[in-house]
Amino acid sequence: MGKGNLLYAQSGGVTAVINATASAVIQAARRHKVKVLAARNGILGALREDLIDTSKESIAAIRALAHTPGGAFGSCRYKLKSPDVDRAPYQRLIDVLRAHDVRWFLYNGGNDSADTAYKLSQIAADFGYPLACIGVPKTVDNDLAVTDCCPGFASAAKYTAVSVREAALDVAAMADTSTKVFVYEAMGRHAGWLAAAAGMAGSKPDDAPQIILFPERTFDEAAFLAKVKTTVARVGWCVVVASEGVRNAEGHFLAEAGSTDAFGHSQLGGVAPYLAGLVKKALSMKVHWALPDYLQRSARHLASATDLAHALAVGEAAVEYAMKGMNAVMPVIVRTPDAPYRWKIEAASLAKLANREKKLPKNFVRRDGYGITETARRYFAPLLRGEAPPPYRADGLPDYVVLKNIAVPRKLPAWVG
Amino acid sequence: MGKGNLLYAQSGGVTAVINATASAVIQAARRHKVKVLAARNGILGALREDLIDTSKESIAAIRALAHTPGGAFGSCRYKLKSPDVDRAPYQRLIDVLRAHDVRWFLYNGGNDSADTAYKLSQIAADFGYPLACIGVPKTVDNDLAVTDCCPGFASAAKYTAVSVREAALDVAAMADTSTKVFVYEAMGRHAGWLAAAAGMAGSKPDDAPQIILFPERTFDEAAFLAKVKTTVARVGWCVVVASEGVRNAEGHFLAEAGSTDAFGHSQLGGVAPYLAGLVKKALSMKVHWALPDYLQRSARHLASATDLAHALAVGEAAVEYAMKGMNAVMPVIVRTPDAPYRWKIEAASLAKLANREKKLPKNFVRRDGYGITETARRYFAPLLRGEAPPPYRADGLPDYVVLKNIAVPRKLPAWVG
Repeated sequence: MGKGNLLYAQSGGVTAVINATASAVIQAARRHKVKVLAARNGILGALREDLIDTSKESIAAIRALAHTPGGAFGSCRYKLKSPDVDRAPYQRLIDVLRAHDVRWFLYNGGNDSADTAYKLSQIAADFGYPLACIGVPKTVDNDLAVTDCCPGFASAAKYTAVSVREAALDVAAMADTSTKVFVYEAMGRHAGWLAAAAGMAGSKPDDAPQIILFPERTFDEAAFLAKVKTTVARVGWCVVVASEGVRNAEGHFLAEAGSTDAFGHSQLGGVAPYLAGLVKKALSMKVHWALPDYLQRSARHLASATDLAHALAVGEAAVEYAMKGMNAVMPVIVRTPDAPYRWKIEAASLAKLANREKKLPKNFVRRDGYGITETARRYFAPLLRGEAPPPYRADGLPDYVVLKNIAVPRKLPAWVG
Repeated sequence: MGKGNLLYAQSGGVTAVINATASAVIQAARRHKVKVLAARNGILGALREDLIDTSKESIAAIRALAHTPGGAFGSCRYKLKSPDVDRAPYQRLIDVLRAHDVRWFLYNGGNDSADTAYKLSQIAADFGYPLACIGVPKTVDNDLAVTDCCPGFASAAKYTAVSVREAALDVAAMADTSTKVFVYEAMGRHAGWLAAAAGMAGSKPDDAPQIILFPERTFDEAAFLAKVKTTVARVGWCVVVASEGVRNAEGHFLAEAGSTDAFGHSQLGGVAPYLAGLVKKALSMKVHWALPDYLQRSARHLASATDLAHALAVGEAAVEYAMKGMNAVMPVIVRTPDAPYRWKIEAASLAKLANREKKLPKNFVRRDGYGITETARRYFAPLLRGEAPPPYRADGLPDYVVLKNIAVPRKLPAWVG
């Protein structure tokens, strides 16, 4: 009694390992005899006073979280306005935190969440409410500043590289009489991190993917088609990896170029079917395409062991920082020399992180714009390294856990947001 | 010298474990001191006299085949006409087999291949050429008659169930503020085997997938939309698995309903984007969709251990049958009582198998048409059981092998097909 509770919330798109971070947070807090409340559906749960009492979960369930994808308490896409525009939600958050004796708030997310955690720490100080706000990194977009990489990214990257490698073996076997061109669509609306990771599928010049399309490079249809044509002529087949964020010279997403079909159906596009149609029409080649969507960020079965270790470490460090009385910081991953790969966790100021976006470095993209460099390979290889499969049940499915998620009784009036 | 060579060829779409069968064939033949030639790109390699000498491959490479997806020697989509229509290709095959002293022909494929192997065995007898033809089962479509299941199917089924389970955890976490409906497209143009396997992702009534669309059931748009709506109202979100073979009341594939977009691009359709567009338009819900295409049949990283054991066993049995002088047979998988699951390999006559298609049993589909029954679960569970991951390299990619595939010198004039 007395020391207070810790509130943990997940934010934005979930990943294969964000629950591993949650598992580490809860286990570390239990060692400190601190109760962890979790906000249901992210920050919305805090605003709605919809809190979960994680002390009702068994240690076995909390441990199993470390091998379960998705977001165990629910996440949300909800960005608080700046307190300069609307101070009411921050006031409400302080009310809820106070009502439930929350002294530490751990916000597990990307750029927006770092910004929210930072602002909340400032407002709490304004209100004179004793609160430590710790950001905890997570995003398959890999676009947080300061940190070398973001937990969640490396597992999606491993999924991407392995899937492209496997599909390429299929295409290579069939190309003589069937599919000549295969297009794989990777997530990444603003930056080509996952598309770049697909480059790890091959290492020699004619290995798949022979073409990567990055959002950082303007799509040149004629050059693309010429490259497909010469690749098929030389190799016999061609694998294309396209980032969903690829745009044409007018700045339009290719994925949206064909979003209404001839029947007026709002066929939901994708850059892969668009490119497949282009190749089929222009080159008269048989084309297949894949769009794995959420599969790539939830594939816990193929998680990177390095990523899992990062996800656990940032969760544990966040609790240690909180217990030490640190505020407005985030544990980030720091890479020490490349070979052998070593990393450590350090505290970074949320002020430095908030609202800054890390771009794919220019020297990761090959000069011709269609592949990755050795510098990129040195960055990706240790991140993709190691396997951390979940346990499986007798019916062949992974033994993923679903928590009880028992609600904490409400103490306040309903939120009118 | 003397006893002759064995020719092995892969046919049709490749799978995650067809190379495991090849590995078992080559290892078994080596034990019998029989040289294995492989036809490059399936039966076309036999017609073109484009043969590979597998004795040039190391034992380590042949063993590594067992964990490598794709088709190591190339496959093809090429169906020989009936000898009643065109006897020339069969004559050519006999010429090539004779020139390379081939006494055993192992054809690893589906229905068409069983038919071809059967006809070739008859023609060889007509010509007085001593040849044993053995069919070896393989197909993710799981539609071969007689055999309880087809090597390759169970791994694709496991991939499907695991992927749907993982994506569902993602959707469940985000549904409050983001995606409410997720559509996953499974292979299966003629039968809903893989779509049905997706049913293994859940077990309770509201578990994902809440809706499976089978090609065996005519698509009813109004009923489908009503079911999506009530599911989202009750569960908060809805996962739909659709077989690529789903058709409307007019008999048209939904996947082809919107194949040209408003810009005249031949946007290559899919049933998933079609259904996603439908849901978005009719119910104004945020929808995501995935179309894994070749990923589902090449995902060796997630192969079922049961499937791998089957794939190895049929390869080994095929060689044993050949050595015993059996002809026009196929090793098939026979299931003995369900619990515990036991299986054995038996020889089935190719005449019984050729050109017969096994359909998804009616009692596998729930009465309402949107899910699977307990009978289906009892069939699938042991097939999905067990993991057989490949070894991984230090850069996080599986250590898949690419063979040298050294050609056997040609002895005959070029084939004019």
